[in-house]
Amino acid sequence: MSAGTIFGVGLGPGDPDLMSVRADRLVRSARHVAFFRKAGRKGRARHLVDGLLRPDVTEVAMEYPVTTEIPVDDPAYAARLSGFYAAITRELCDLSRAGRDVVVLCEGDPFFYGSFMHLHARLRDLAPVEVVPAITGMSAAWTATGIPVTWGEDVLTVIPGTMAQDELARRMGDTDALVVMKIGRHLPRIRAALAAVGKLDRAWLVECASMAEQRVVRLAEAGDDAVPYFSIVIVHGDGRRP
Amino acid sequence: MSAGTIFGVGLGPGDPDLMSVRADRLVRSARHVAFFRKAGRKGRARHLVDGLLRPDVTEVAMEYPVTTEIPVDDPAYAARLSGFYAAITRELCDLSRAGRDVVVLCEGDPFFYGSFMHLHARLRDLAPVEVVPAITGMSAAWTATGIPVTWGEDVLTVIPGTMAQDELARRMGDTDALVVMKIGRHLPRIRAALAAVGKLDRAWLVECASMAEQRVVRLAEAGDDAVPYFSIVIVHGDGRRP
Ligand SMILES: C[S@@+](CC[C@H](N)C(=O)[O-])C[C@H]1O[C@@H](n2cnc3c(N)ncnc32)[C@H](O)[C@@H]1O
Ligand SMILES: C[S@@+](CC[C@H](N)C(=O)[O-])C[C@H]1O[C@@H](n2cnc3c(N)ncnc32)[C@H](O)[C@@H]1O
Repeated sequence: MSAGTIFGVGLGPGDPDLMSVRADRLVRSARHVAFFRKAGRKGRARHLVDGLLRPDVTEVAMEYPVTTEIPVDDPAYAARLSGFYAAITRELCDLSRAGRDVVVLCEGDPFFYGSFMHLHARLRDLAPVEVVPAITGMSAAWTATGIPVTWGEDVLTVIPGTMAQDELARRMGDTDALVVMKIGRHLPRIRAALAAVGKLDRAWLVECASMAEQRVVRLAEAGDDAVPYFSIVIVHGDGRRP
Repeated sequence: MSAGTIFGVGLGPGDPDLMSVRADRLVRSARHVAFFRKAGRKGRARHLVDGLLRPDVTEVAMEYPVTTEIPVDDPAYAARLSGFYAAITRELCDLSRAGRDVVVLCEGDPFFYGSFMHLHARLRDLAPVEVVPAITGMSAAWTATGIPVTWGEDVLTVIPGTMAQDELARRMGDTDALVVMKIGRHLPRIRAALAAVGKLDRAWLVECASMAEQRVVRLAEAGDDAVPYFSIVIVHGDGRRP
């Protein structure tokens, strides 16, 4: 019997119509799908394929260990996550050895700040692995603003909103186009950093790009409410345009 | 009669299987497709949809004016391109007013360094326009390397290879992950800049990502031959990974 393949399949930004033809085919025909989720939740990636899966699909929910009581920079945090990824790797390898293909559902593009990357690094020498790229959340976000993101010789900088405020501001000041990922609770700091470099009035907040709940607002008018997990801040480039 | 819609449809990086479900549907059912091309060429975007179009499709080839004799920074260069975009805009508006939908074929994601953006800026107040995002060339390129591009808090910088060498080097030195687009004749300068900041040994050259001609090599081993139009240089990030 030949080994099954572990497919890291990018689902794109959310709208099933924006999945690639290949991802659509893999997802709809999958007999085993795996996806990350927080304990007690349905799982965001799983939610994106509602209604697409075969009725007889086997679902492998990969539940993150609870880490809220450990600081992110404590070695115990990395150790707990590392043990979790190792256990999942064994589970997926067993399926592969039993000849099963497994479709791992990934939000956006798997190799762009994705959780699947941690499995990929462990699996790649143990089982056949294939990665299917996808439309990123940021592509859907700039499309949703109705304004192109990079022109001519524009530089695009992508930063996580988790950075320290002065580093955020330095990066924001030294680029043409800007994308801030992983907004979470960091919106006030992101806003302050943009204001510090004089770009707040050009910044947009895009929530849930391409999904039913999509919302596009100027960041200056966005208010201080908590934003959804799927949120991106964008400043468009302004380069050469004949 | 209601106005037709001008669709800016991202075709993705090249493999038709990586087109979105939506793009696939729009392209296959289109009665009018438009695409840019150089005089005397077939057109790269047109080439990507070979075999997908209806037999009765009407093709609108938008041929770039010849500008080789004018320096890029001469105002006459911008003027000639601007006149070209204005003429195409009139042609597409006429089709829209006649009730025709038109699918404009775009390489990669239309709003990411795309030619369609110049039409979009002119069309958006004159006709219904819709943009379909797509997988970028860079997503296909980092997928082709088999290595994730950004981890944890990595910063990603995307730069055009057309920048001056010292500015290239400054940007390359001040980022975690790096993508260089529009390589063209600039490979020797890009390589020198990477060497200057000590990153040449981590750089990859990806040609024609996801296409039949795909080639992935370490940049240090790439040689000095001319590279195809579809070429990207990548340095992967190296951030936190449990
Ligand atoms: C762990 S990263 C995963 C990124 C994903 N692999 C991609 O290619 O977009 C999660 C972050 O992606 C961004 N994101 C992904 N999809 C999004 C969407 N549809 N709308 C807004 N933000 C999105 C948000 O900033 C979110 O915090
Ligand atoms: C005018 S830009 C258009 C970018 C496109 N809109 C995108 O989303 O990737 C053209 C540049 O994109 C890059 N590119 C696009 N598709 C590519 C592919 N499949 N393989 C390698 N490079 C690609 C090359 O650097 C090329 O010079």
